Amino acid sequence: MNIAFIGLGNMGAPMAMNLLKAGHALKVFDLNPAAMQALAEAGAQAALSPRAACDGAECVLTMLPAAAHVHSVLTADEGVLAGIAPDVPLIDSSTIDPASAQRFAELAARQGTPFADAPVSGGTGGAAAGTLTFMVGASPALFERIQPVLTAMGKHIVHCGGVGMGQTAKICNNLVLGVSMAAVAEAMSLGAALGIDTKILADIINTSSGRCWSSDTYNPYPGIVETAPASRGYSGGFGADLMLKDLGLATGAAKSVHQPAFMGALAEQLYQALSQRGDGRLDFSAIIKLYRDA
Amino acid sequence: MNIAFIGLGNMGAPMAMNLLKAGHALKVFDLNPAAMQALAEAGAQAALSPRAACDGAECVLTMLPAAAHVHSVLTADEGVLAGIAPDVPLIDSSTIDPASAQRFAELAARQGTPFADAPVSGGTGGAAAGTLTFMVGASPALFERIQPVLTAMGKHIVHCGGVGMGQTAKICNNLVLGVSMAAVAEAMSLGAALGIDTKILADIINTSSGRCWSSDTYNPYPGIVETAPASRGYSGGFGADLMLKDLGLATGAAKSVHQPAFMGALAEQLYQALSQRGDGRLDFSAIIKLYRDA
Amino acid sequence: MNIAFIGLGNMGAPMAMNLLKAGHALKVFDLNPAAMQALAEAGAQAALSPRAACDGAECVLTMLPAAAHVHSVLTADEGVLAGIAPDVPLIDSSTIDPASAQRFAELAARQGTPFADAPVSGGTGGAAAGTLTFMVGASPALFERIQPVLTAMGKHIVHCGGVGMGQTAKICNNLVLGVSMAAVAEAMSLGAALGIDTKILADIINTSSGRCWSSDTYNPYPGIVETAPASRGYSGGFGADLMLKDLGLATGAAKSVHQPAFMGALAEQLYQALSQRGDGRLDFSAIIKLYRDA
Amino acid sequence: MNIAFIGLGNMGAPMAMNLLKAGHALKVFDLNPAAMQALAEAGAQAALSPRAACDGAECVLTMLPAAAHVHSVLTADEGVLAGIAPDVPLIDSSTIDPASAQRFAELAARQGTPFADAPVSGGTGGAAAGTLTFMVGASPALFERIQPVLTAMGKHIVHCGGVGMGQTAKICNNLVLGVSMAAVAEAMSLGAALGIDTKILADIINTSSGRCWSSDTYNPYPGIVETAPASRGYSGGFGADLMLKDLGLATGAAKSVHQPAFMGALAEQLYQALSQRGDGRLDFSAIIKLYRDA
Repeated sequence: MNIAFIGLGNMGAPMAMNLLKAGHALKVFDLNPAAMQALAEAGAQAALSPRAACDGAECVLTMLPAAAHVHSVLTADEGVLAGIAPDVPLIDSSTIDPASAQRFAELAARQGTPFADAPVSGGTGGAAAGTLTFMVGASPALFERIQPVLTAMGKHIVHCGGVGMGQTAKICNNLVLGVSMAAVAEAMSLGAALGIDTKILADIINTSSGRCWSSDTYNPYPGIVETAPASRGYSGGFGADLMLKDLGLATGAAKSVHQPAFMGALAEQLYQALSQRGDGRLDFSAIIKLYRDA
Repeated sequence: MNIAFIGLGNMGAPMAMNLLKAGHALKVFDLNPAAMQALAEAGAQAALSPRAACDGAECVLTMLPAAAHVHSVLTADEGVLAGIAPDVPLIDSSTIDPASAQRFAELAARQGTPFADAPVSGGTGGAAAGTLTFMVGASPALFERIQPVLTAMGKHIVHCGGVGMGQTAKICNNLVLGVSMAAVAEAMSLGAALGIDTKILADIINTSSGRCWSSDTYNPYPGIVETAPASRGYSGGFGADLMLKDLGLATGAAKSVHQPAFMGALAEQLYQALSQRGDGRLDFSAIIKLYRDA
Repeated sequence: MNIAFIGLGNMGAPMAMNLLKAGHALKVFDLNPAAMQALAEAGAQAALSPRAACDGAECVLTMLPAAAHVHSVLTADEGVLAGIAPDVPLIDSSTIDPASAQRFAELAARQGTPFADAPVSGGTGGAAAGTLTFMVGASPALFERIQPVLTAMGKHIVHCGGVGMGQTAKICNNLVLGVSMAAVAEAMSLGAALGIDTKILADIINTSSGRCWSSDTYNPYPGIVETAPASRGYSGGFGADLMLKDLGLATGAAKSVHQPAFMGALAEQLYQALSQRGDGRLDFSAIIKLYRDA
Repeated sequence: MNIAFIGLGNMGAPMAMNLLKAGHALKVFDLNPAAMQALAEAGAQAALSPRAACDGAECVLTMLPAAAHVHSVLTADEGVLAGIAPDVPLIDSSTIDPASAQRFAELAARQGTPFADAPVSGGTGGAAAGTLTFMVGASPALFERIQPVLTAMGKHIVHCGGVGMGQTAKICNNLVLGVSMAAVAEAMSLGAALGIDTKILADIINTSSGRCWSSDTYNPYPGIVETAPASRGYSGGFGADLMLKDLGLATGAAKSVHQPAFMGALAEQLYQALSQRGDGRLDFSAIIKLYRDA
């Protein structure tokens, strides 16, 4: 299939690569020429603008840092909406707020372009391995159409509901994640200070009602889970600044629907404090540094 | 074995009953005569004081609301320490702070009484079914001695380390639990307000990094988990006031070791607010009522 | 002086009225015809668009709900920037984030329009009485030029620095205000529950280190300050939803400069909870309702 | 008058000294012989126990770190209650929780000893200068009796109500103080990061609704108030660890009456974090260090 792919950052580049590997023909665009060069060497065609990338495309994907970038890539004179052919699906895999996704869908709909939000989880590792989870907000018909394309990049393609529901699912999940990671960091540090063997503590939590991914798979205390960032100096993984961004999306979305978000708002401030002290590029489990010298 | 059991409340009574069923001979004491009467009808011998209950006991168990009660039951003139024979194990299954447990162990040690803290999880259901988890703080030798007694009341008997470590394990687990439940309540309410199908949202969280017991087993949103209190009006289960107490123990213990407990302290206030509006006797997953009309 | 005034809401209308009283000639615009009608009856000329209102104006004022409205009023085809003559001062008295104010100043500068942000405090009462405080962000020269106009509407015209600093001053002040009001509500409720005479408590706080405007002038406990909204059912005053908006601006601005805002973020959530229970239109001191039946 | 004074720490020693200066005859006791030595050199008589200090006393004062110390000093075999003559007033100026004060009053009443709680504010400076504020919980008759004694040590002697109300007043005031200081620290740091001149910002807050003692008298930003600890490296003043203790008393008292204390609990955690990083002995306005390199 002819596919346009806009946004070749840490996530976008390996995702585009997997589309190539799956046999698709790609036109790509990124503001960074080096990023385009890498894809071009792998067989993609570098385009001079998002609009140009859409030329002849049967499907268009965008993977960008924030809603403002998506807005610009879609609506600029040389943007996607100026170049995309009628009825060609437009899939945005950026993580943005649900309301923006819905606004973009409306803009697209005005010219007959079906729009899906499809944020991912799984990180750069999952992007490279093609094992991402896609959380998709789209009409059932559109979901069916785009599923084959997404399958080339991900393992779990989940239909979350109409437009915006992919984003909703992602930020709600990450709200729980960001809070529970802080809670596990707090509890493990407390246990250590009280003198318990932290491996025993983790075992108990992991087989009790405190059980959670942040404890059993990604424990922030060093040496508990061999494969977790905590066991390699908090390098790699899911950056604290990205968690900060996602918690900001969650509290922002809560505000938009007049919901309180007590726990999310406090967690957001804690990750902000972590970032301010210079640790924003570490894995988000480094939040434990607010509790102990880790 | 001859066992003294002090404290026949909602948890203590069924625990004592299981000891009887396992063939032990029980002397029991409680300030409430009706509670003793029920046990007496099942074959236990009612005692006039904790001290009297200890007469001839080869093992003494206490199950009381708070550290102040344990202190009084142990140290009163007619208390346990006045009646217990040398070298007889004293097991306190109350949920109290680790430092108090350690202080009681010292008091007991002065007269040669080996002391273990052994708080439980599993609720009144687990107490009745004999499927409690015991988190035990004791020397290895003492742990080995008391394990057979605990097995009559519980399914998982976990050795958490020296005295106080049973309490430490419990409050650290419940710190994670209380916070993650609030987080799930917040995220499910947010998702609902944003328009996602809450069953789909729960499915996504449960197979993603937000996965936790509070979501996959005990989801606070009505209708997600059939067996959870949320699906029966938040009746039964683990009372919000008990979670409030346990979070108080966690933040108190954190204070004692000069650790911050940001998330625990906020969650404690939220459960306090729930309690103040009159919902303290509901299951703690009713915390979702702070976010939506549930 | 010929003045254009855009935005005739609860604040804008009485401000415009005071400009008329001071002898200025006004062209006004609002989306709501009734609002224009009232000003027209008082001698202003109703315009068909912001652009039309600017025709012949020697000074342009905008007073709008949020940054999005300002953006639209300034940049629309029939907007202010299309109609304003070269070198005519543009004063925005809306309360918005400092970065937006700075962006609007840049837009204006491109066509030679000097821009000042000049948010106010003093509420609708101050707007009617002409006793508002204006916090002005502008170059010294511009400040000097616009001061006479602002004096017709306000009592204190404070130069806070360059563009954006008016907004900065306002949101920093309101951050302290929103937090300290919640603190006073918490302390007064706590004191009452502990049994102290609340008048005595307020007296002590007001002559001690807890002294603050939220306690000595605007105490949220009923009956302490006769003139405060708390003594008339929390009607009138500064609405809780406006405080919620301002705290959102404060935490948003903190995010933009990578600063944590722990206290502001928690206070924001508390006002959100107050709003969610239906009390957003009450005075913001009604935050005490989260602590007691007030 | 013959006065017994127990507890000669940083506060107690200068307070006792002022009683001597006022012409009273003092018997003093402290666990630290050096502290007693200093008072003895000034004319006091060193006693071998609290009980001995009470011999012949017409009034007994205690000034101790926490409720546990008061309990021990009052109830020990060689304690105050064993030595005090009938109807001699017992005044505790320690800062403790109201419920403990009320319990001590009951103990004292059993033997006909009238008890007053009389915590102070004003710090070591006020203690030395004799300008403390005493917040007194006592019956009107007892208040009248003890007022002359307190006047020798303080400038403002405030009757707050019955026993426990002195403590209630103090912790409620310090709850507002601890929270508002954190709020001012947050707002000043935010303003600085946004680029405003911090002196201008403080001026605006101090003449607006954010006005408070933490801003106009004790501003935590360096260089704003010449006489504030912030302008001398946060040395001297009211220690962060003392504020941490008082916030703990406030949240503990709130818990005892089933009140939420959202703001106090968060502030408590922030001061705990400040203490954990090693700054607990600095003035409490050093809380600003959590927001910026100060």
